[in-house]
Amino acid sequence: MGWNLHGTHAQIGDLIQLVGLRHQNFIFQLREGVDFQSHRGVIRYEDMIGKPWGSPIFSHNGSPFFLMQPALADLLKSIKRSTQILYPKDIGYILVAMGIGPGLHVLEAGTGSGALTTAFAYAVGTEGRVTTYEVRETFHDLAKSNLALFGMENRVTFKLGNIGDGFEEKGVDALFLDVANPYDYIPQVIAALKPGGFFGSLLPTTNQVSLLLTAMRQNHFAFLDVCEVLLRYYRPEPDRLRPVDRMVAHTGYLIFGRPILADETSETQALLKEAEEAEPLEDALGGR
Amino acid sequence: MGWNLHGTHAQIGDLIQLVGLRHQNFIFQLREGVDFQSHRGVIRYEDMIGKPWGSPIFSHNGSPFFLMQPALADLLKSIKRSTQILYPKDIGYILVAMGIGPGLHVLEAGTGSGALTTAFAYAVGTEGRVTTYEVRETFHDLAKSNLALFGMENRVTFKLGNIGDGFEEKGVDALFLDVANPYDYIPQVIAALKPGGFFGSLLPTTNQVSLLLTAMRQNHFAFLDVCEVLLRYYRPEPDRLRPVDRMVAHTGYLIFGRPILADETSETQALLKEAEEAEPLEDALGGR
Amino acid sequence: MGWNLHGTHAQIGDLIQLVGLRHQNFIFQLREGVDFQSHRGVIRYEDMIGKPWGSPIFSHNGSPFFLMQPALADLLKSIKRSTQILYPKDIGYILVAMGIGPGLHVLEAGTGSGALTTAFAYAVGTEGRVTTYEVRETFHDLAKSNLALFGMENRVTFKLGNIGDGFEEKGVDALFLDVANPYDYIPQVIAALKPGGFFGSLLPTTNQVSLLLTAMRQNHFAFLDVCEVLLRYYRPEPDRLRPVDRMVAHTGYLIFGRPILADETSETQALLKEAEEAEPLEDALGGR
Amino acid sequence: MGWNLHGTHAQIGDLIQLVGLRHQNFIFQLREGVDFQSHRGVIRYEDMIGKPWGSPIFSHNGSPFFLMQPALADLLKSIKRSTQILYPKDIGYILVAMGIGPGLHVLEAGTGSGALTTAFAYAVGTEGRVTTYEVRETFHDLAKSNLALFGMENRVTFKLGNIGDGFEEKGVDALFLDVANPYDYIPQVIAALKPGGFFGSLLPTTNQVSLLLTAMRQNHFAFLDVCEVLLRYYRPEPDRLRPVDRMVAHTGYLIFGRPILADETSETQALLKEAEEAEPLEDALGGR
Repeated sequence: MGWNLHGTHAQIGDLIQLVGLRHQNFIFQLREGVDFQSHRGVIRYEDMIGKPWGSPIFSHNGSPFFLMQPALADLLKSIKRSTQILYPKDIGYILVAMGIGPGLHVLEAGTGSGALTTAFAYAVGTEGRVTTYEVRETFHDLAKSNLALFGMENRVTFKLGNIGDGFEEKGVDALFLDVANPYDYIPQVIAALKPGGFFGSLLPTTNQVSLLLTAMRQNHFAFLDVCEVLLRYYRPEPDRLRPVDRMVAHTGYLIFGRPILADETSETQALLKEAEEAEPLEDALGGR
Repeated sequence: MGWNLHGTHAQIGDLIQLVGLRHQNFIFQLREGVDFQSHRGVIRYEDMIGKPWGSPIFSHNGSPFFLMQPALADLLKSIKRSTQILYPKDIGYILVAMGIGPGLHVLEAGTGSGALTTAFAYAVGTEGRVTTYEVRETFHDLAKSNLALFGMENRVTFKLGNIGDGFEEKGVDALFLDVANPYDYIPQVIAALKPGGFFGSLLPTTNQVSLLLTAMRQNHFAFLDVCEVLLRYYRPEPDRLRPVDRMVAHTGYLIFGRPILADETSETQALLKEAEEAEPLEDALGGR
Repeated sequence: MGWNLHGTHAQIGDLIQLVGLRHQNFIFQLREGVDFQSHRGVIRYEDMIGKPWGSPIFSHNGSPFFLMQPALADLLKSIKRSTQILYPKDIGYILVAMGIGPGLHVLEAGTGSGALTTAFAYAVGTEGRVTTYEVRETFHDLAKSNLALFGMENRVTFKLGNIGDGFEEKGVDALFLDVANPYDYIPQVIAALKPGGFFGSLLPTTNQVSLLLTAMRQNHFAFLDVCEVLLRYYRPEPDRLRPVDRMVAHTGYLIFGRPILADETSETQALLKEAEEAEPLEDALGGR
Repeated sequence: MGWNLHGTHAQIGDLIQLVGLRHQNFIFQLREGVDFQSHRGVIRYEDMIGKPWGSPIFSHNGSPFFLMQPALADLLKSIKRSTQILYPKDIGYILVAMGIGPGLHVLEAGTGSGALTTAFAYAVGTEGRVTTYEVRETFHDLAKSNLALFGMENRVTFKLGNIGDGFEEKGVDALFLDVANPYDYIPQVIAALKPGGFFGSLLPTTNQVSLLLTAMRQNHFAFLDVCEVLLRYYRPEPDRLRPVDRMVAHTGYLIFGRPILADETSETQALLKEAEEAEPLEDALGGR
């Protein structure tokens, strides 16, 4: 059963998003013989098969829905919020800053409800691999079921356990710690991440950021980068264009860095000293 | 010659980033028999082959460099700035909001110097496809050479021409207009983009945003979304943690929407009316 | 009955703020023989007279309160929210940008519930003067009673009427329009404001801002300035310092400018052309 | 010699701002018999006396200027930048949050080049008083000359000395510490500030903020408030309205609080516990 966003009509096996009145929406896999039950009535599977994406479709009692393919952002949005999940604004920047793309092997802890896992699995594709650790069984199971719902469970290895004992993987391309105390696991990170690989974390308080930066500096990480991503929505009304009244002011600080194989020569140490602080991405682009 | 970010040691064919003192860096492909000439001396290709990523490496006159694999953000940063290019902060959000991932066919205009083209090519992988239109030959050529440098020219079809005449493609999965007057090309967009597909644009002024929103509303686009992404860097110093003094205040407004196959039934029209404005992504996540 | 913030102990006539549990607070004037009735019990006036500011004080049934002098921000906060009022973040910047200080005569329309009126009356002091127009009688009365509560009614002239007929005042030092269509009243502004005086407005949508800027440019306003003030709160916890989760994303765009006595000489026209756009305040301070 | 912003024509003694081409401007006091020498020629004092504000005026060689009254923001902008000065965006919020208005006695340390001193002197008027401490003689002298230039030296007492020895004043209405280590002077603050008075500070790093919050909590401060003010400028062009490209990302974190006369009763302690964190100003206004 596949993951196929590249098509123009709904087919068996496709991931489907039905969007109804009041922004209600449902994401599920289209299966032979399985109708969809909503509180606005039944949508028959025969009515969905072969329909062009973007079509209106009606439940047995006449309630209208649009038949859509979900974007990654829609998947993230649909994930059950048992924990604080990462936001699309942060995830997008993480993907670009850490170079997460097709074919990579990405390691993550903790899994939580699987939002970041979903994004990583989406981005690495069928040739890539995501391995994710979680210490709480409830979340381990929840994330598994979320990824199965999205048809991406084959791209992910779910592990239940404490990363204090170390990761079983070696030489992964990128590693993200979404835990409260990432500064306690830097040796484990270095053992699992390939030299020069991409490390990232997200932390809510400035105190935690200071602790993580200290640990990274003590362990030969270079290109340290700390930033926040802020997203501001506008009401999409052409004649009354204005930002919405409220916004998310804070999800967390993003911290990035890359472990370096620094020898003790004075030249390398001088280079490391300079490279500790990353040149901001925007800088070369004229941003400062 | 391949695109291989999944490896632990530098090999012939790999894309390499050398980072030297004062944040100077160079991105190139490692080739048999080709030394790299920098103004800090020559780096011999034999000295790079087989070295672990993250290693220090020295030019013939002793200047130190770190041997790194570039992230997508590094590629974007290195692109010659002949035009205003999109920023990583915007690109990351575009990828997530439009669901750009492995295997998709993405259409773009205009190409410019190829920054967004690079990001799309990176994200769709070897199984995906990017087609990009540019009306100015200089940029058409520049973008081609940038993508070739990055080893991703095989994923991209470069077309020289005016999109006023329409796109030659039909049923593409996603379409991004990076032109000054996207509101003039909505019929062309609808002809090329599959129903329910993802449309996006970036515009610097509020007046342009109003014009585009008007055109989209008149052409059965649903899930309209307007937003700005702001990125704030911090100095990564654990004992003196603080934001940098200046930041990029504005690159542009991002506009997203999806064309719908709306029929004239009152139910569909009512649904479309409601769905014109997208539920903000952050909203379901507790963001407003 | 006075307005006395300059004292160390509560006296008859003082404006008092009692702050109780759950951030509940009450602002009133301390009067001979008048006890304060709260739903947490009665606070006797004798118990307040002569007490140092900042003291704990108890109602007849033992509920604790702090006896405080309200800041201007507290007054603004307490104003009944019958309309969208201006926020302290915007008001503070307005005061500085328009130079509102002791002794000035400030003109305002519309009064609304009197938040900005309160701030202007506070800032101009007993030697200054605020004149404010309102077309809706309910707000006219509400603002009057708010200013009376704060003991500043003697500094303000409340007028009920439409500014389309013009202001009765001439040569005022500063003029603020808090109405939906300020661009319709520019001739009235010029008739009432002294040449070189300070004009300001606040508007929620970009479309309104464009209309106002057009009207100002057509009427010899110089030093045009458009900005937004954003305020971000942090949880004041030393060991878990972080921004609050949500923030106000938008109240309005602030627009400032000053009418100029431009003659038709080419030199003056050239100067006006240059001076149309204000040098941003932050600019001379190193802000851009 | 007076401070008179309330007039329609330039008079001897008035503070004048001449604004010439390229946003060049000069602030000085108009004096009998004293011409103004600019590098664009001489402006004769007779040519300024009696001219309406906002008039064009010409130097002896024909260079045009506008004859303006400076706003508080203009004064701040003109202050020689020997130190990092506070920005109008921060100063405006400080005035409102701390209730700085006519008649108050405000205490400040350190003086620096006198920007905040200028704003306080402006706001308290002729009936108020500002006392400011500075330990470095150069700044002490510089600030004195700046305030004299603005004609407000009579409102300010300048003291040269270290506040570690304590302030000589008692019972002041408001106190602002613009020093690097305000957490070292909390006992001195409590000795000088009246109970319930307004305390404020501005600090650039999160580490300093944590230290100050700890010191304030240990010393019975209530209504702690930490925030940042961000100012975003727009190009004032009606047909191409957009934010400017760059902005000031950080000046400092503002910290406010008020010392309380807490007794040891459990009721007062409970109240203090709750009141430690201020209810955000925007909160009652619907801001969170």
